[in-house]
Amino acid sequence: RDEHVTLSHGSGGKATHNLIEGIFAPAFANTVLDRMEDAATITIGEQRLAFTTDSYVVNPLFFAGGDIGKLAVHGTINDLSMAGADPLYLSVGIILEEGFSMEQLKRIVDSMARAAHEAGVLIVTGDTKVVQRNKADGIFINTAGVGVVRATANVGQTQVQPGDRVLLSGAIGDHGVAIMMAREELDIETDVESDSAPLHTLVAALLDSIGTSLHCLKDPTRGGVATALNEIALGAEVSIALDEQSIPVHEGVRGACEILGLDPLTIANEGKLLAIVAPEVEQEALKVLRSHPLGREAMVIGTVQAEPAGMVFLRTDIGGTRVLDMLVGDPLPRIC
Amino acid sequence: RDEHVTLSHGSGGKATHNLIEGIFAPAFANTVLDRMEDAATITIGEQRLAFTTDSYVVNPLFFAGGDIGKLAVHGTINDLSMAGADPLYLSVGIILEEGFSMEQLKRIVDSMARAAHEAGVLIVTGDTKVVQRNKADGIFINTAGVGVVRATANVGQTQVQPGDRVLLSGAIGDHGVAIMMAREELDIETDVESDSAPLHTLVAALLDSIGTSLHCLKDPTRGGVATALNEIALGAEVSIALDEQSIPVHEGVRGACEILGLDPLTIANEGKLLAIVAPEVEQEALKVLRSHPLGREAMVIGTVQAEPAGMVFLRTDIGGTRVLDMLVGDPLPRIC
Ligand SMILES: Nc1ncnc2c1ncn2[C@@H]1O[C@H](COP(=O)(O)OP(=O)(O)OP(=O)(O)O)[C@@H](O)[C@H]1O
Ligand SMILES: Nc1ncnc2c1ncn2[C@@H]1O[C@H](COP(=O)(O)OP(=O)(O)OP(=O)(O)O)[C@@H](O)[C@H]1O
Ligand SMILES: [Mg+2]
Ligand SMILES: [Mg+2]
Ligand SMILES: [Mg+2]
Ligand SMILES: [Mg+2]
Ligand SMILES: [Mg+2]
Ligand SMILES: [Mg+2]
Repeated sequence: RDEHVTLSHGSGGKATHNLIEGIFAPAFANTVLDRMEDAATITIGEQRLAFTTDSYVVNPLFFAGGDIGKLAVHGTINDLSMAGADPLYLSVGIILEEGFSMEQLKRIVDSMARAAHEAGVLIVTGDTKVVQRNKADGIFINTAGVGVVRATANVGQTQVQPGDRVLLSGAIGDHGVAIMMAREELDIETDVESDSAPLHTLVAALLDSIGTSLHCLKDPTRGGVATALNEIALGAEVSIALDEQSIPVHEGVRGACEILGLDPLTIANEGKLLAIVAPEVEQEALKVLRSHPLGREAMVIGTVQAEPAGMVFLRTDIGGTRVLDMLVGDPLPRIC
Repeated sequence: RDEHVTLSHGSGGKATHNLIEGIFAPAFANTVLDRMEDAATITIGEQRLAFTTDSYVVNPLFFAGGDIGKLAVHGTINDLSMAGADPLYLSVGIILEEGFSMEQLKRIVDSMARAAHEAGVLIVTGDTKVVQRNKADGIFINTAGVGVVRATANVGQTQVQPGDRVLLSGAIGDHGVAIMMAREELDIETDVESDSAPLHTLVAALLDSIGTSLHCLKDPTRGGVATALNEIALGAEVSIALDEQSIPVHEGVRGACEILGLDPLTIANEGKLLAIVAPEVEQEALKVLRSHPLGREAMVIGTVQAEPAGMVFLRTDIGGTRVLDMLVGDPLPRIC
């Protein structure tokens, strides 16, 4: 085991997974945390609630299509949505570096307020800390969120069955590439914007239409679609077979990835979801996704199989099949 | 208004108050946040829930009586308790600096797990990010928490009435002085230990005994008792008169404060509460506090008055009266 934390431990990929499984999960173990879902599902009285948290350390703070504040609101809304919940309330914990610009802080706070307002969630509690110069990087934001699991929802990795279909709500890699492009060191021209968006109404539409035939949801953030599907394959003890040709990638993302030697399947998204559904509702689910502004480019990208459990395979464009692993290393640290 | 963030904005005192009132509160405004209580009280279905968050950036990470992990669990339990809630579930968001020692991480995580277990709360969801060297300071921890407001609780700044009594559950300043002592630069010998402790059972005992005669609770963390009572005086639009002689301060804290020119009333605590109660239950409340291991040194320290609203006065040991302000500046940055 590593003696020191490396950037890979923050990639959201294999090293993060190993750190969580090696240190956090055993120490905190309980039946809720052990499910390792995007949001915890807790029952209080008669209410099924979802509860989740994410910290945001994205660099730079402002980029095409968004900023750290918008991301911090959308990201937590999305993890609640992945539990089939309507997001209701957010907390915001802000860590500031001494010397940070008040004007930038105000822009970020206004962006959070706008994102919350547009999504219909309330920021009801917060905290503000300051550390000395060079002990942080401008601003870090944590959001936690509470939502109510929708009555018709019964999603989770344990619901995934062999034969299920894997749907993706749209093109991948936009967020990660937008962040790369915003980093000064790069000098590539693209029109790629972050896809940062709140996914709760898309999930509500799916649940209204296919109910418990919606088996599992996951937003492919850090580590991208490759990592998200590997986590599901491991958690659900199934195999997933993907068809590369069906996976939508915008031209600008494809170009940037080729230049940089990156795989769009491992790049972060902030407004996309993976939905695993019963085979008989595949076309219905696809129709619902495509009827929503955030799902217009949705595709069926693969199938769940019984064996070999815990593995993801990709039928490539040129006709071969390869193992699709979790993200290894961290080519793009601090993507969110 | 300041153009840049200063360490004072993180003191928990006047500058923090102004930053929150100037930037966060107006942007996020809603009827829940506007109450500016230690925890938000939200109603979901029939359930009255409490929801709160704090980030921890304490330096050093380990000190007499505790560490950042224990603090992060107790602090959020305590803010939930200040809403009259039984704490149930915590989230944990961890930001690590590249190169941080895995052995220290493990110690901190084990300390969090122990504190959560001892308090009967579950850590059900989390997040882990890593930033480059010199972009953080080892580890920052955010915890958010959800609890159920106890049936007999009706606490809040709006409940505070002229004539009410102010009780303090024990001696002040232990946490802040323990942190100071743990900083290498100081060379004073004391036996002061952080008072870090979970206050929910103390609150439960109070509520079981005096119910709605318990009007308001606040844990005097950053900014100490002076800041906490000023916040209540402002929020409740009352005046508070304190009797300095009645305020317990341990010998080691008094000595360290004298040497360093600090006022124990502005120093942080992590296991103390202020309770504002109806005058007729003063002695009953005091008895309940003193019967609990965490309230043995409890005292009645003051009285609520109608005028002048928003101000706190201190009758000093030598017989005079002075205005007791919120903490100004930040003599001890990163106390929690
Ligand atoms: N420090 C931690 N302690 C406890 N559980 C954790 C911790 N970090 C992550 N987890 C848990 O591990 C799982 C994966 O977390 P992760 O942060 O990768 O998910 P995510 O929020 O959906 O992804 P992202 O952070 O990229 O948006 C979740 O179930 C989460 O609750
Ligand atoms: N960034 C923020 N956005 C919104 N509200 C905030 C923010 N920071 C603090 N608040 C609110 O301001 C009030 C005071 O916050 P503060 O953090 O000082 O309270 P506390 O947690 O009880 O004290 P401490 O942080 O010292 O333990 C609370 O009602 C809190 O919800
Ligand atoms: Mg997620
Ligand atoms: Mg997330
Ligand atoms: Mg706080
Ligand atoms: Mg508090
Ligand atoms: Mg607090
Ligand atoms: Mg996360």
